[in-house]
Amino acid sequence: MQQTRFAILFLALLGGPFMSMSSAQTALPDAEASDPQKMGWMQGFPPAPDKLIKFANGSNYQFPRTRWSFSHGRELGPTSNVWHGAGPVSALPVALLDLDKLRFADEKGSDISWADMQARTYTDSILVLHKGKIVYERYLGITKTYVPHIAMSVTKSFVGTLAATLAAEGKLDPSAPVTQYIPELKDTAYGDATVRQVMDMTIGVQYSENYADPKAEVWDYARSGGLLPTAPTYDGPKTFYDFLVKLKKEGKHDEAFAYKTVNAEVLAWIVKRATGQNLSDLLSERIWQKLGTENDAYFSVDSVGTEQGGGGLNLTLRDMARFGEMMRLNGKFNGQQIIPVAAVEDIRKGADPAKFAKAGYVTLPGYSYRNMWWVGHNSHQTFEARGIHGQRIYIDPVAEMVIVKFSSHPIAANGATDPVTYRAFQALANHLMK
Amino acid sequence: MQQTRFAILFLALLGGPFMSMSSAQTALPDAEASDPQKMGWMQGFPPAPDKLIKFANGSNYQFPRTRWSFSHGRELGPTSNVWHGAGPVSALPVALLDLDKLRFADEKGSDISWADMQARTYTDSILVLHKGKIVYERYLGITKTYVPHIAMSVTKSFVGTLAATLAAEGKLDPSAPVTQYIPELKDTAYGDATVRQVMDMTIGVQYSENYADPKAEVWDYARSGGLLPTAPTYDGPKTFYDFLVKLKKEGKHDEAFAYKTVNAEVLAWIVKRATGQNLSDLLSERIWQKLGTENDAYFSVDSVGTEQGGGGLNLTLRDMARFGEMMRLNGKFNGQQIIPVAAVEDIRKGADPAKFAKAGYVTLPGYSYRNMWWVGHNSHQTFEARGIHGQRIYIDPVAEMVIVKFSSHPIAANGATDPVTYRAFQALANHLMK
Repeated sequence: MQQTRFAILFLALLGGPFMSMSSAQTALPDAEASDPQKMGWMQGFPPAPDKLIKFANGSNYQFPRTRWSFSHGRELGPTSNVWHGAGPVSALPVALLDLDKLRFADEKGSDISWADMQARTYTDSILVLHKGKIVYERYLGITKTYVPHIAMSVTKSFVGTLAATLAAEGKLDPSAPVTQYIPELKDTAYGDATVRQVMDMTIGVQYSENYADPKAEVWDYARSGGLLPTAPTYDGPKTFYDFLVKLKKEGKHDEAFAYKTVNAEVLAWIVKRATGQNLSDLLSERIWQKLGTENDAYFSVDSVGTEQGGGGLNLTLRDMARFGEMMRLNGKFNGQQIIPVAAVEDIRKGADPAKFAKAGYVTLPGYSYRNMWWVGHNSHQTFEARGIHGQRIYIDPVAEMVIVKFSSHPIAANGATDPVTYRAFQALANHLMK
Repeated sequence: MQQTRFAILFLALLGGPFMSMSSAQTALPDAEASDPQKMGWMQGFPPAPDKLIKFANGSNYQFPRTRWSFSHGRELGPTSNVWHGAGPVSALPVALLDLDKLRFADEKGSDISWADMQARTYTDSILVLHKGKIVYERYLGITKTYVPHIAMSVTKSFVGTLAATLAAEGKLDPSAPVTQYIPELKDTAYGDATVRQVMDMTIGVQYSENYADPKAEVWDYARSGGLLPTAPTYDGPKTFYDFLVKLKKEGKHDEAFAYKTVNAEVLAWIVKRATGQNLSDLLSERIWQKLGTENDAYFSVDSVGTEQGGGGLNLTLRDMARFGEMMRLNGKFNGQQIIPVAAVEDIRKGADPAKFAKAGYVTLPGYSYRNMWWVGHNSHQTFEARGIHGQRIYIDPVAEMVIVKFSSHPIAANGATDPVTYRAFQALANHLMK
């Protein structure tokens, strides 16, 4: 029950959460056995028929093919570019530590290593910054330093950061009704909601991410955004916009945190209306270029070029580390204040844990969700961006540590990875603070 | 007749040559009237219905929408990235000249300006290097320094350069039968052809690019590569490979130059088999990273990730200028010998003009086609990469000049732009040599 609930709660949109829970119950190949290089996906000209991964048949969403496709999104569909800029790449000093020797107790009390954690969570790549220096960096399978990986719902935190930035600058009013920016949402669940409620996901909206239900709204969402192939007879919404204007209210706003990907799409729409810029240009101008990123990032887009703000950002690990480090440093990085201190502070202070508690996340006790970030309210003041299948920006200000991680875990529920991941991250924080 | 012939000859594949010639006969908006910014394509969230450009209905191939879509290819379909590398961007020194004052006689003897030429040819962006310095650089409409533009058949010259490089290194044997690299082509037009015949396009193959004929092979080519939407009932080839293995012989090899895009696709396949790398990685490793490019380039790809070697490369103007300058300097740029001198020499020496003459290109007297480059055999020793709708790398070694140009001319035939373009380029060369 809790497992299913996590699936429903966390199955953010992602670029593709289209994994049935039933498959998670059967025996799956482990990280080593599912290494995409060894499995030979998409090698040769042409690849062998049984090694093909295609959008048209949905095979890109099937584990273990996801271990390849999560790093090859743009080869499977249309995208929008986030330019890295013309300036020099910012330095990421390196001071490597032998963390593979680090050991800690897993959720069953067994003694395991930092490397074991990576295998158990089907890590694709992972990097740790301590006091701004790279102390650990690893690329597994077919991943490379310069190849973007899908961030899944970590995308939402980028959208939320842009929104918080605009709010701090007075260019977006969180207390305003959503309809001030998007009149088209008047007769939807958002007709009587505020921007703040969208930013913190306390919206009462009829939107199910229950993949076992073929009538769940998530399917129309995915099809509307071109994330899934459609049958010739499909006559549902064909853009994100067309989908969003059909959302009905369910329950009340502002009572409880309810994680629903559509809120991120609505926030992305608000941000675009407030600035007159699309997400790609806005992210490039406001953040990517200033960070001194090494590489372009990209969003998956729908049939009219709309970026998937709920889960479609693809970026490199090092650039995600730069972003995480900037957040740790209250918006300052690469010799400049990139986003206002007030924006980061508004994220880090979190929202109301009581509203969050109603959502029942057993692996996230005492948390809240603010500006599309997960805030720990713990002694280490951690705050995080989280994406399904194991995508993560984990910021521990007390330990002066930032961990960024891309993964392709077969189970589309963070409950499957949180128990070991959190123990590993906390053990590393304690190790670095010694 | 000549007009039609040019359409057939030149309608390289392009990412989309799907423009009917009939439209070219009617009155078309001029460059200023068709400025994509002024026309308002794809502005707003969402864009107005009459301002939408979509792949699904083929509107991206319709002039004047092409003035937008030629710079937005990746938002319309899947792509493969050509990484710019981790090294520093190479310098392109600037020493601007006021070329807009340059005047010359057009094909009718009228006195026109350098700026007039740009408008007449629906120029999107243009850059001139003289002795390695930027003397002119202009971005019109929605183009930007950092946004790739489709190169159309200029793509072929990149593939040909890679092939010539491998040949110079002994890693590809031009005298070998095609089947040595691609046994799958045994029962096709290429079954008794050599690699050299493919490189120089003297292949006898049944392949029509006559767009007036719905049964012309070009349509299957386009659909196979995902360049056109297909009807639900479509049961033709679904990848470039599937299309290529069906090509039948027509006439004889080695007798005459015959410009057919499929030869570039076959050469791309040969290059991939010879190296074990896809085009994107090969171009990145061999050329893009070494040039010190500013930005990633990208290829459009088919449903199994195969790059369109015949016309699918998208790149920025400055990076195309770097490539052109390297070719002018016999493979040397950014402080290093990037490709072998022998490879460039083999391109510049050209092929047999007598075989070329049989193809009847009135605007290209005395030319030949070698390694997918157009070679002038004239007093200025010019050689060029040419793409439909006005894409160009024009190298004039005697004038120490390189011109790179992206355009979105409504007519899919270089015969429509050559008369004014060549006069302008030659006038500029003479001006710079004064």
